[in-house]
Amino acid sequence: MSGITIAPPLKNAPVESSGPIHGVIAPNLTPFNADLSIASELYVAHAKALIAKGCGGLAPFGTTGEATSVGIEERKNLLARLIEAGIDPSKLLPGTGLPSAPDTAALTKHALDLGCARAMIVPPFYYKGVSDQGIFDYYDYLIRTVNDDRLRIYLYHIPQLSQVGFSLELVGRLLKAFPGVIAGIKDSSGDWANTRGLLTSFDGFHVYPGNELLMLQAVRLGAPGVITATANINSRAIAKVYDERETANAEALQDAVSDLRKLVQSYAPIPAMKALLALATGDQRWTNLRPPLVAMDVNAAKALASRLKAELGVDLA
Amino acid sequence: MSGITIAPPLKNAPVESSGPIHGVIAPNLTPFNADLSIASELYVAHAKALIAKGCGGLAPFGTTGEATSVGIEERKNLLARLIEAGIDPSKLLPGTGLPSAPDTAALTKHALDLGCARAMIVPPFYYKGVSDQGIFDYYDYLIRTVNDDRLRIYLYHIPQLSQVGFSLELVGRLLKAFPGVIAGIKDSSGDWANTRGLLTSFDGFHVYPGNELLMLQAVRLGAPGVITATANINSRAIAKVYDERETANAEALQDAVSDLRKLVQSYAPIPAMKALLALATGDQRWTNLRPPLVAMDVNAAKALASRLKAELGVDLA
Repeated sequence: MSGITIAPPLKNAPVESSGPIHGVIAPNLTPFNADLSIASELYVAHAKALIAKGCGGLAPFGTTGEATSVGIEERKNLLARLIEAGIDPSKLLPGTGLPSAPDTAALTKHALDLGCARAMIVPPFYYKGVSDQGIFDYYDYLIRTVNDDRLRIYLYHIPQLSQVGFSLELVGRLLKAFPGVIAGIKDSSGDWANTRGLLTSFDGFHVYPGNELLMLQAVRLGAPGVITATANINSRAIAKVYDERETANAEALQDAVSDLRKLVQSYAPIPAMKALLALATGDQRWTNLRPPLVAMDVNAAKALASRLKAELGVDLA
Repeated sequence: MSGITIAPPLKNAPVESSGPIHGVIAPNLTPFNADLSIASELYVAHAKALIAKGCGGLAPFGTTGEATSVGIEERKNLLARLIEAGIDPSKLLPGTGLPSAPDTAALTKHALDLGCARAMIVPPFYYKGVSDQGIFDYYDYLIRTVNDDRLRIYLYHIPQLSQVGFSLELVGRLLKAFPGVIAGIKDSSGDWANTRGLLTSFDGFHVYPGNELLMLQAVRLGAPGVITATANINSRAIAKVYDERETANAEALQDAVSDLRKLVQSYAPIPAMKALLALATGDQRWTNLRPPLVAMDVNAAKALASRLKAELGVDLA
């Protein structure tokens, strides 16, 4: 593997650096028809509605979007549909990570061709117990394969699922080797010490906490926003916390969105949010998940909706 | 998700059931050039050599073949090359499992089009803590998507990497729902109690232990053979255990291959086997691995080769 760690020659002339997306970024849900094909028009409508309801951006094909259950061609098609529907690529942070570098590079190039410079890329997640050197070599190989200096990589740190994550030391090595290309990280560990470490260790590195529980603390340390699953059902309230982060209301607004988050994540959150959207909209396509995820029982969903209303005063309908 | 568990209509008329591959099946290694592109002609030459050296079959694109580091198009191309090179598809058990059902179905259909009825399919391995119902639904959805009654699925049970595995109860449910289609399992758990349970619980179900340590015990309980990484460097000796399984030599032959297995697996086995092949053949392409796996240090590899010779009398050159 000699030569792997040398910085790559890049094919395009340098372009203006694209900064981070600010505010609330929703990893938008992926709806399916009863036969488990993609409900494309509902996918686009939900995405547009999230932007209209205060999201600063979208992160299509994250864990919440059941990305690893969606095929490569389906992902390409859906990203194109979002842009055709008028969503500005500058608001998009698509997930393009698959276990292999060639497939990840293909998705990333496709996104770049559509004008999406930013890609959220999970480390390869099949092999376990891999070394920091192996993860470093992976991004090196990937960057050389994509070979496009417009690329801005947001590392996706979600060790509870990928089992493979990023140490602070590894992030520092990647930033030094690929300045400008390694642009940020979504920290879904839920571990404030880790998020704080990322926020305070590196200049110009865009650190998003992976849920809104840590939002105020993170933005006060320089985070450009939050990437949070619950934005799929609570975007207005979460955006309000961000918008009023400098005001005396901020803490109370934060507490309210945190209460909702804690309640929803005490269930399996992806089936729960889809079930709540089905109840709120009457569109039964929201009850479909692709396996291995399984749908929430309808009575359990009704009980959760009742709790949201009774305990938090939230009515999604 | 109503309707998901109904047995699918299949598009082709029933064909003669293809039985299991007998003997030693090698999950053949994937060699890379220095730039990490696939060394296709070396891939084919190694595969043909394994057949010539006593392997009853090959399982391309398993864990050992770094399958999850190889792109979809690369996998399609390599499988086609093996068959073009004259390897009978009846000797092939390709791995076709990816995290998404659509991509897994695409690889599986491609293999069927090339005449490979058998496919070794790992469960979707991104989400963790998934239910037996979710895994059942996944194979149901996959089988309906492939929609070809020639298909013979071999479940790939490797919980130490996939983190998602098969309980005996789930295997029983799958066999009952998809008789003839769910044909067997590779049990890479290394847990004899699990392998024995699989061998003794289901009639006509082809259970392969995932390494040769358990080979004699397993074949004596009806296993058609073994699928083992170490066949890449020790196929003749392992095949001899299988061939002489009914003789008085069997135990001594088993002990010898077990000693080699234990020594190799005390290192990271994929880098170790590639390093040993590089030393034995002088072909430096064997030292290349795709990240996140990293190559073995050459001095460590020489020390391992010395130990194999000194302790076990094995000279791979």
